[in-house]
Amino acid sequence: MLSEFDLIARYFTRTTQRGGSVQLGVGDDCALIMPPANESLAISTDMLVEGRHFLPGADPESLGHKALAVNLSDLAAMGARPLGFSLALALPSADEAWLAAFARGLFALADDAQIELIGGDTTRGPLNICITVFGSVPTDQALRRDSAHANDDIWVSGSLGDARLGLDLLMRQLKLSEGDSTTALQRLHRPSPRVSLGLALRGVAHAAIDISDGLLGDLGHILQRSAVGATVEADLLPIGSALRSQDHQTQYEFALNGGDDYELCFCAPPTQRDRVITAAQQVGVAVTRIGQVTDELGLRIVDRAGHPIKLRSHSFDHFASS
Amino acid sequence: MLSEFDLIARYFTRTTQRGGSVQLGVGDDCALIMPPANESLAISTDMLVEGRHFLPGADPESLGHKALAVNLSDLAAMGARPLGFSLALALPSADEAWLAAFARGLFALADDAQIELIGGDTTRGPLNICITVFGSVPTDQALRRDSAHANDDIWVSGSLGDARLGLDLLMRQLKLSEGDSTTALQRLHRPSPRVSLGLALRGVAHAAIDISDGLLGDLGHILQRSAVGATVEADLLPIGSALRSQDHQTQYEFALNGGDDYELCFCAPPTQRDRVITAAQQVGVAVTRIGQVTDELGLRIVDRAGHPIKLRSHSFDHFASS
Repeated sequence: MLSEFDLIARYFTRTTQRGGSVQLGVGDDCALIMPPANESLAISTDMLVEGRHFLPGADPESLGHKALAVNLSDLAAMGARPLGFSLALALPSADEAWLAAFARGLFALADDAQIELIGGDTTRGPLNICITVFGSVPTDQALRRDSAHANDDIWVSGSLGDARLGLDLLMRQLKLSEGDSTTALQRLHRPSPRVSLGLALRGVAHAAIDISDGLLGDLGHILQRSAVGATVEADLLPIGSALRSQDHQTQYEFALNGGDDYELCFCAPPTQRDRVITAAQQVGVAVTRIGQVTDELGLRIVDRAGHPIKLRSHSFDHFASS
Repeated sequence: MLSEFDLIARYFTRTTQRGGSVQLGVGDDCALIMPPANESLAISTDMLVEGRHFLPGADPESLGHKALAVNLSDLAAMGARPLGFSLALALPSADEAWLAAFARGLFALADDAQIELIGGDTTRGPLNICITVFGSVPTDQALRRDSAHANDDIWVSGSLGDARLGLDLLMRQLKLSEGDSTTALQRLHRPSPRVSLGLALRGVAHAAIDISDGLLGDLGHILQRSAVGATVEADLLPIGSALRSQDHQTQYEFALNGGDDYELCFCAPPTQRDRVITAAQQVGVAVTRIGQVTDELGLRIVDRAGHPIKLRSHSFDHFASS
């Protein structure tokens, strides 16, 4: 006798095996994956909780997209090729309309990334979405956080700050043009994981991270683990097109500390500039050089003249209690 | 500036890298694991929710043990060797006493299994524990659910039903002797994943599953996926030592449908009986032959004379709404 939740679980087993690295998918005690010879399996887990990572009543189709996108973004930041993912889902009730929309958003992105759901778990409980993604990467080509060198260029993909603008739009009734609103909300709800760019940067970049908590905080992780510092020139930041409608201080704040961008920040030696630009062109993603890694520790934000810039806020922290 | 939850995350990064298959652990966008040559990575995810899988106020040390144990049990059922695990944890508040005890239970079992925490996520939210485990197994030796053959013996490890007795003790103020109470609660809160037995059954058993929802339901998964049936002789069931204090009907019910046993149920050809017994002796786990796989579909429970036995209840379902 199937319970409601057995039926839900069946909802998430629509995929057939695509062969290749995934040898056994949904339906056994474990899934079996074999990465290509001499490659490592890259693994990342993100848990999304209602009221923390998304607002109550958030559109389930966008949520399905975003839950997988933020995980794929971690593979991108490692230069890993996506292979599959598992989904653990706690739901307060078996709401079929919600589930259908969530699955639509989830599987549209999964199809796009050519990966399949390999397993998971479904249970009743407060809404919680926990996805674990699996990819493969030649171990010595992984884009780690601990491998930036002094004098490396610092690059970011795409543009920054529009997702944070979208959050402000929802939380504080900010006034934006219709076009800017659409752009900002699209960036907030439908991030594009930079998987192709990550793959193209193998053997080109020294280090990479994806920007989930804000450029400064995330670049800070690279600097800390690589035991280096950096200078970032504020005027070089690729400000999101909607964010350009705001004053300069807001532009800096959101671009540097906004969070939810899911762009790549990466460090590559100046000798690789042409290869970085070629790689980015090949995958159709803009990249912008915003500063330089330094021997001197600390992270300095400067204006065109090299003077330090003061900022109002700290990096966005999902978990801070105050 | 570290938030409370950053500090918690640090609590779970105490492990150093053990080398071997885990090439990069906590602290980057992804962990990197490389299974041994010609082996697959076996992966399983379980999500535990307060009020569903454990009672509110459950002892956090036992919870840390059990959350990992139920996942290791999935590796055992696949014949996989544990390599590592990731932990995603949502907590209503950063309660240090709770965390210390939870981590103690979790890492005691991790040390026992010689695996390390390779990554994860920590966030504020209703209590939710989502663990993903990783193991390795030669692909053609994996103990799958779909490979039972007609005429195979059906075996179970250890004993059945005491965990369910423990749940009844907590839920319905059942009267038990002190010794039986201790046994029943130990089985409920501190299951022993049968990892060594799973490894010893590689190349010996055709198919295996771990008993989480009750023997009948879980054996049913093997039968369904292998397109076979089975006859199980009720008098052969290894009834838990505490459960033996109850009437025969309760013994059958709890042993067949109790759930939370985390024993292995496996199918092996009669020609392998000696090897099964030797394997079990080598790892110090009792095994009992309880029936036979049949060409005829369906699952029949019979008494010594071969007559069908009637049962009161269905398999325990965590998720059923009624």
